[in-house]
Amino acid sequence: MADKKLRFGVVLAGCGVFDGAEIHEAVCTLLAIDRIGGEAKCYAPDVDQAHVVNHLTGEVTAERRNVLIEAARIARGKITPLAAFNAEDVDVLIFPGGFGAAKNLCDFAFKGADCAVNPDVESAVRAMKAAGKPIGALCIAPAILARLMGGEGVELTIGSDAETAAALQAMGARHTATTHCEVVVDRASKIVTAPCYMLDASVSQIADGAANAVKALAELA
Amino acid sequence: MADKKLRFGVVLAGCGVFDGAEIHEAVCTLLAIDRIGGEAKCYAPDVDQAHVVNHLTGEVTAERRNVLIEAARIARGKITPLAAFNAEDVDVLIFPGGFGAAKNLCDFAFKGADCAVNPDVESAVRAMKAAGKPIGALCIAPAILARLMGGEGVELTIGSDAETAAALQAMGARHTATTHCEVVVDRASKIVTAPCYMLDASVSQIADGAANAVKALAELA
Repeated sequence: MADKKLRFGVVLAGCGVFDGAEIHEAVCTLLAIDRIGGEAKCYAPDVDQAHVVNHLTGEVTAERRNVLIEAARIARGKITPLAAFNAEDVDVLIFPGGFGAAKNLCDFAFKGADCAVNPDVESAVRAMKAAGKPIGALCIAPAILARLMGGEGVELTIGSDAETAAALQAMGARHTATTHCEVVVDRASKIVTAPCYMLDASVSQIADGAANAVKALAELA
Repeated sequence: MADKKLRFGVVLAGCGVFDGAEIHEAVCTLLAIDRIGGEAKCYAPDVDQAHVVNHLTGEVTAERRNVLIEAARIARGKITPLAAFNAEDVDVLIFPGGFGAAKNLCDFAFKGADCAVNPDVESAVRAMKAAGKPIGALCIAPAILARLMGGEGVELTIGSDAETAAALQAMGARHTATTHCEVVVDRASKIVTAPCYMLDASVSQIADGAANAVKALAELA
C-alpha cells in the first residue's frame, strides 16, 4: 500500500445531525482519511430523507429533501449515488453517524430491532464483505451492521446507552461498551466501530475517535 | 486568560459551500477552537439565504431556506441569532468562509466592490472593533472586513486570486497574497485572515489554516 493511496468510501446520510449525517463526524472522518494519506470517495443513496428537521427548533418540517443532494453539501459536490457503488473502487467503507444513519440508511430510529436497511446500503455492505474488505461505522451507524451482520454475531459498540445496545443485541450483535475515543475492532468480521456523538462529546473527541477508527480500518485493509 | 476559556464567536452563513458556510472550514474552526481549550459560540443572521444551490448539480433551486436554521445544522442546534450578539459575550469573533459569507453575510458575490453588508454582521463587527477585540475571517469572508474596514486600509488575504484581490483593494483594503496554511495578521486593526478554500486545498490544509488563524487570534485577544 506504500505506493498507492488507501481508498475510503464514505457513506453520507444527508447533512445535519437530526435528519442526516452528523456534520462534525463526517468532516472529521474526511480529515482523518486525508491525514493518513488516504483518499475519500463520498457516496449517498438517491432517496428522499425520512423527514426534514429544523435544527434550530428540533421540529419536523413539511419540506422534502433528498439524501444525495443534501450529502453533496458535505462532499462539496463530489459525491456518487450509492447505487453505483463498486467494492473494487475502494479499500475500506465507512459510515459516519447522525440520525440520518438510523433514519435514511436504515429505519432503526423508528423501528429499533425490527429495522430494515436501504437496499443500496445493504448491497454495498454485502459487496465489501464478499471482497473481504473492512467496514467502519461511527455513532449510531453500527445499527446498520447489527441488522446485516447480527447473524454472524458481529461485535460492535454504540458507546454506553443500554437501550440502544439492547436493540443491537436483539439483532444478534455482541455489544461492547466504550467511552470517548475508544474503538471496537472485530477482526474476524473486519468491522470497526466507535461511539462518537452517542456520547456527550467535544468536537476534539469526535476528531480523535474518527481518527482512531480510520487508523484501525487502515490496519485491516 | 489562564483561568478562563477564551470565547470565540463563530458567525455561520448557512450550511454548504455554494450557498452557505463552507462546512469543512466551519467544522475545522470549531475543532481548532476546542483544541486550544477555547469555547465556541455560534451565531448566524436570521434572514433568508440569497438563494439555495443544489450541491449535486450546482444549479439554483426554487427553494427558500433561512441562514440561521441551516447554520444550526453545523452548530447541532446550539446557535444564537446574530441580532442578539453582544461583544461582551466573546473575546474573539471569526467568520468561516463559503459562498454564504459573500451571498448572505454581504452581497460581494453579486456586487463585488459595490457590496453591502448585512446589518447584524456590521453591528457585530463594529461592536468588536469598539471593544478592541480581534476578528478573523477565512476564505472569501475577508470581503466583509474590506467593506467595513477598507477606510482604515486594513490588511487582508483571500489567497492569490487576482480579480478578488483587486475588488478588496477597490474597497480600500491592502491585500497580501498567501498560499496554503498561511495567515495574514494586521496587528493595528486586530484582524486575522487566511485563504482556506480560496485555494484548491485538501481538508488537512483547511484544518491547518483554520488552526493557524485561531492561534493568531488567541494571541491578539
